[in-house]
Amino acid sequence: MRERVNICEVGPRDGLQIAKSRMPTDTKVRWIAAMAAAGLKEIEVGSFVPPRVIPQMADTEEVVRRSVEIPGLTVIALVPNLRGAQRAYAAGAHKISLPVSVSDGHSRANLNRTPAESIEEARRLMDWVKTQPRRMEVIAGASTAFGCSIDGVVPTARTVALAKGLADAGVDKLMLADTVGYAHPAQIKEVVRAVRAAIGPVLYGLHLHDTMGLGLANALAGLEEGIRAFDSCLAGLGGCPYAPGASGNVVTEDLVFMLESMGFDTGIDLPRLFEARRMLHEAIPDEPIQGQVPKAGIPKTFRAAA
Amino acid sequence: MRERVNICEVGPRDGLQIAKSRMPTDTKVRWIAAMAAAGLKEIEVGSFVPPRVIPQMADTEEVVRRSVEIPGLTVIALVPNLRGAQRAYAAGAHKISLPVSVSDGHSRANLNRTPAESIEEARRLMDWVKTQPRRMEVIAGASTAFGCSIDGVVPTARTVALAKGLADAGVDKLMLADTVGYAHPAQIKEVVRAVRAAIGPVLYGLHLHDTMGLGLANALAGLEEGIRAFDSCLAGLGGCPYAPGASGNVVTEDLVFMLESMGFDTGIDLPRLFEARRMLHEAIPDEPIQGQVPKAGIPKTFRAAA
Repeated sequence: MRERVNICEVGPRDGLQIAKSRMPTDTKVRWIAAMAAAGLKEIEVGSFVPPRVIPQMADTEEVVRRSVEIPGLTVIALVPNLRGAQRAYAAGAHKISLPVSVSDGHSRANLNRTPAESIEEARRLMDWVKTQPRRMEVIAGASTAFGCSIDGVVPTARTVALAKGLADAGVDKLMLADTVGYAHPAQIKEVVRAVRAAIGPVLYGLHLHDTMGLGLANALAGLEEGIRAFDSCLAGLGGCPYAPGASGNVVTEDLVFMLESMGFDTGIDLPRLFEARRMLHEAIPDEPIQGQVPKAGIPKTFRAAA
Repeated sequence: MRERVNICEVGPRDGLQIAKSRMPTDTKVRWIAAMAAAGLKEIEVGSFVPPRVIPQMADTEEVVRRSVEIPGLTVIALVPNLRGAQRAYAAGAHKISLPVSVSDGHSRANLNRTPAESIEEARRLMDWVKTQPRRMEVIAGASTAFGCSIDGVVPTARTVALAKGLADAGVDKLMLADTVGYAHPAQIKEVVRAVRAAIGPVLYGLHLHDTMGLGLANALAGLEEGIRAFDSCLAGLGGCPYAPGASGNVVTEDLVFMLESMGFDTGIDLPRLFEARRMLHEAIPDEPIQGQVPKAGIPKTFRAAA
């Protein structure tokens, strides 16, 4: 029995939100279905944010409604607040992700509130979610948990404090996000240990960016600390509009290759994932695409015993 | 006291050998001097191979003669055999690296001999080197130690057997080379442990390629097994003409960033390294250059305490 690692594809949300070209709704849904067919069973399909702020996400309600029809797929929507959670719930989202910044600067720029106010919002949101007839899991994402392009160094103690506030507010899971890609492997291990000591199994996974080329090394560091869930993005799209200098997310294709090579089970079929990559590239051909394994091709040694 | 990690820059050899454009000798030497000034104190400056096979290396003798004049620099030359070692010695090289393939297919294609014949050549070479008045260290490089694009899977036992043969032949150090970039972190750990069990401290370092995007993750795996020496290549140039599908070496700039971020001492100054990168790019502008840190810029959190 191979050990499972869960990958949540965030391309339709984190990837498309800074894409220069808009992807039509029909194309989005077909792309999401193609990724689900490749074995990506958790996909963040959009965000309930004001269309004037991120116009690429204006069709999120329809994308959620249509994505929940895809068999076997867990549909996640990002929501900035209680009102977003209510919209996601109404559209039928299975899970929601709630971004909360550790650093003041990113919190102000991205969410227009302080981290303490975000924890209050999380509490209100959880109070509402818990009283609904349908169960909708809430995953908080601790942005800038490893550093901030605005504030610089983010002390581990601040990340721990925010994580504790969110766990106390009752969120189901917490992702630690290296929003701007400043983390290094030793830091990943230190922060994961400290946060786990504070909130135990509420700590769920890592959301990594490849700004400095350390995305997979950081994923490896997380794996070694027992992390078994990662966000990633097909073709390494993505970034944060309020995190200057942030570049793409860790590349799903390469992450899957690393995990499967190491003997983990991701449930994902690489050749079918490459088909979804081609679909993405054809839909928004002007966006640069990252990923080494699709370029080099799957080597003949892949998953063969040595 | 920060722990030291030694980086050997292989750009002038592994990088330029497959470059489409030729770098003039004067430019090579200026580039080597710029990298030495940035703190790269070990540089593989060329290879003593027939010019008809690798014309980019035709000026290696002159490059070695001039590079040994650069203060503080340890000059390494690649040699395929005893005759190459004699030429390197005559030119004044401080160290030589001797490539030996683990897999039969790569050995035939790259060296036109079997691995067993390579061990014999290493023995002849060591017999000669040991009788010379000047000490010239010999570093054997075990190519395709983690997989081969021609033969596929390379069993760990074969890598161990070759390592043992080379250690018995008397080489000073051994580098394990992921020539085609097929290695994954769990494999790095397994092979490093097995080889160290067989040859102890003769195992020196790792030579990694980034074909699948796993270069830095593999370096991290090596670090965790106690490896403290890496080959790398400025701008991630490089590849092997006889290893189809092999892409560039692990990027020196990103590797230095990771190591220094984690608290290791490489002795290398990143801004000055970026100057050497610019010099390289200006000299051969048609070659694609890799590296995330030079693109993103050094973040304000670099080497700051959290």
